[in-house]
Amino acid sequence: MQSAAGKDKEQLRYRLEAIVGADQVRSGADIGERYRLDLTRRYAGAPAYLVKPATTLEVSEVVKAAAAAGLPVTVIGGQSGTVGGAVPSDGGVALSLERMNRIVEIDQLSMTMTVEAGCILQVAQEAAEQQGALLPMDLGARGSAMIGGVIGSNAGGNRVLRWGMMRDMVLGLEVVLADGAILSSLTKMLKDNAGYAWKHLVTGSEGTLGIVTRAVLRLRPLPTSRQTAMIAAPSFEAAISAMRRLEVTLSGRLSSFEIMWDDFYDRMSGGLLDRQPRPLPSGLGYYAVVEAMGGDEEHDAAQFERALAALVESRIVVDAVIAQSEQQRQQIWAVREDMNPGLADLRPLIAYDVSMAIADMPIFVERARAAMAAAYPEATMLFYGHAGDGNLHVIASRGELSDETRLGFDTVIYDVVRTVGGSIAAEHGVGISRRAFLGHARSQSEVALMRTLKMAMDPAGTLNPGKILAP
Amino acid sequence: MQSAAGKDKEQLRYRLEAIVGADQVRSGADIGERYRLDLTRRYAGAPAYLVKPATTLEVSEVVKAAAAAGLPVTVIGGQSGTVGGAVPSDGGVALSLERMNRIVEIDQLSMTMTVEAGCILQVAQEAAEQQGALLPMDLGARGSAMIGGVIGSNAGGNRVLRWGMMRDMVLGLEVVLADGAILSSLTKMLKDNAGYAWKHLVTGSEGTLGIVTRAVLRLRPLPTSRQTAMIAAPSFEAAISAMRRLEVTLSGRLSSFEIMWDDFYDRMSGGLLDRQPRPLPSGLGYYAVVEAMGGDEEHDAAQFERALAALVESRIVVDAVIAQSEQQRQQIWAVREDMNPGLADLRPLIAYDVSMAIADMPIFVERARAAMAAAYPEATMLFYGHAGDGNLHVIASRGELSDETRLGFDTVIYDVVRTVGGSIAAEHGVGISRRAFLGHARSQSEVALMRTLKMAMDPAGTLNPGKILAP
Repeated sequence: MQSAAGKDKEQLRYRLEAIVGADQVRSGADIGERYRLDLTRRYAGAPAYLVKPATTLEVSEVVKAAAAAGLPVTVIGGQSGTVGGAVPSDGGVALSLERMNRIVEIDQLSMTMTVEAGCILQVAQEAAEQQGALLPMDLGARGSAMIGGVIGSNAGGNRVLRWGMMRDMVLGLEVVLADGAILSSLTKMLKDNAGYAWKHLVTGSEGTLGIVTRAVLRLRPLPTSRQTAMIAAPSFEAAISAMRRLEVTLSGRLSSFEIMWDDFYDRMSGGLLDRQPRPLPSGLGYYAVVEAMGGDEEHDAAQFERALAALVESRIVVDAVIAQSEQQRQQIWAVREDMNPGLADLRPLIAYDVSMAIADMPIFVERARAAMAAAYPEATMLFYGHAGDGNLHVIASRGELSDETRLGFDTVIYDVVRTVGGSIAAEHGVGISRRAFLGHARSQSEVALMRTLKMAMDPAGTLNPGKILAP
Repeated sequence: MQSAAGKDKEQLRYRLEAIVGADQVRSGADIGERYRLDLTRRYAGAPAYLVKPATTLEVSEVVKAAAAAGLPVTVIGGQSGTVGGAVPSDGGVALSLERMNRIVEIDQLSMTMTVEAGCILQVAQEAAEQQGALLPMDLGARGSAMIGGVIGSNAGGNRVLRWGMMRDMVLGLEVVLADGAILSSLTKMLKDNAGYAWKHLVTGSEGTLGIVTRAVLRLRPLPTSRQTAMIAAPSFEAAISAMRRLEVTLSGRLSSFEIMWDDFYDRMSGGLLDRQPRPLPSGLGYYAVVEAMGGDEEHDAAQFERALAALVESRIVVDAVIAQSEQQRQQIWAVREDMNPGLADLRPLIAYDVSMAIADMPIFVERARAAMAAAYPEATMLFYGHAGDGNLHVIASRGELSDETRLGFDTVIYDVVRTVGGSIAAEHGVGISRRAFLGHARSQSEVALMRTLKMAMDPAGTLNPGKILAP
């Protein structure tokens, strides 16, 4: 048996080398750490092979060969995921699309970009910008995240309020299915109701239903003006009211409204004090980074100022500061995004991304604080998020973080999510780490349907098994 | 056999009456025409039963009873479809959700609306407006189309450019599956990546994968200003260039850009001459109805004027007229929407809704004209559409319209669609009438996947069989 398996394994290696070339296949200990971990470094895979195809056809052939040998296939992207979603299976095939990184075309009239899945997000953003177009998807991991992973996880980011999530930008899609079939629909249409929207099913499926190889993304004309402010509101309701008014006054221009609870603001702005002052004093209640983008350079700034002044006058907002330079803009964003100074002494920490009805956010925070205080009185919790999307980030910390504590934290947070009918995964997907809690956000019937769909599209369990759904 | 079948049939009637009440079941000739036809009046179904449930649970029970008896179930909505998608199967169950027409809740903080599937679109729009909110979905059939049908067909309409299609507004969904299982996920979150996006699979599936019973829809703050104009551009490229510039200058405010080819404009504006002048002279090339909505009442109109003036100055636009009153606004829209005066002498006609890359629109029009002239030299063709969405409407006419001519027209149009990699169904779905042409827009692999999904979710073919996919 041993030697027959060994022989099969050797045969698969020959087959893979025949498909992609001998220098594009590695095995065992030759496979670097970058292909075995994700950002969490908690789930380490030990894949049998790392394969780097150069074309969709090669991806298809690799999947066929792996399936024939009974080996699972996991796509390795930028590995900026936080739930173990792209960690390869032990003994399986790790498929890196890093060689498939071309921008195939930018169509300025149709405002679309056709890219290969291994293209880095930031490269795609910059290519669009050079053609006077905006690829609105933006997130912290832009320098490492690959387009295929951004699609597989249906990433969100800071501009969902205005331009939506990744699925809203995917016009055309090419994927390789579990049997190696190539499904290519690289269309540039916004509207296409000719049959089932399989592209939406694959988007966000974390590589478990199909492997994204190329995509057509929707671009937008590049805005030419930008205004950024930090505002403070006395209550959550007032902050949301401010957002709604800005949605009206600034109309479609409002692109970010990032809310922060007082203690998060205090800690984050405090951590930066050695290099910048606090944009606003702490202790004012709720804070938000507000950003608008537009194309009426002469008038946009004045409109933004008027809109904020009206909020202050009507006492919905108690204080506001508008960035007067790019430096000040970066200082405002740093309070929201530059995690290290403010949170260093809380590490190790767990960052959750949950979502719920916007109206339920305050009760969620209240319940989560109470539940955590009861279970872990010494724990620290901080809250911030994308208000317009119903997406809250929760940071939880208590010195050490054993697997038991992690599970305990998860249970506290996701139990409370369940009480408000929320989601356990607003942005980062389910992967491995949230698999056991899928039932907190989805009914049994929904999970049953997911299993039905997985079974229909990947009966042998070839594609990224054990992610989202337990095997 | 005859009497056993008759007995079975009687038993099903008793069962249905037990579920929904005797007065909510009709059969045979007692079923009105409204439940047997759609807008085309071409496909007449002869359902065995018409059933009007009042709750999701009743829908579930009806589906179970029908499935047990081997009868198909088709949901009857506003019947404003144009492809036979909601025409009931002969001998099957026609399910009308007209009693499930409640607006369950409007959540102003979360900006969501929870509605039952039988609610008329316009009723939902007006309810939102009364709460200071906008349900952006709008289309000609607003007074009859039901929310469930709008979701089932993933309707678009005139504001897709800004707010997207129906799928972009569906946050939560409740459906009854083919086995009667209730899948309820009435969430209010914009972002939810906990597993497969089944709601996107059901949306646009024309009732063949699940029956929509309730939905949570995303609302927007109600705009307070509106500007409308008719513009003319010398070329298609100039018209698109104008749109792109307006997308920048007006930023997110641009909500409609409805393009019209010269002959369509001439005919439509000419047909209205007995009650209104042409907004612009004909013969200028390409026309567009441009509309922007905003919330900065004092400044929006001036911005709109400046933006159009800049287009005229730079000769991208040769002429433009801005509506100065609601009456003038309606006059501008009438040229695009009031089909009867201009098109009366072309009836009967076929209206196509195809889509393609925006850049491919001119070549499509050129090829379609040439192909039609070759096949039907006496035919008339007119072109207009939603430019930003890549969605073209084509009107074709030649006096009589036999089934043979219809098939001939379809073949001409869809063959040309195929040459540009476009879609045969941008808005109205596939239904029955476009089923034979699905392969013109979808590859064999895609159609195979659609069949796999249908088989997985509805193995017995209970839900609206014969629509989208041939039986």
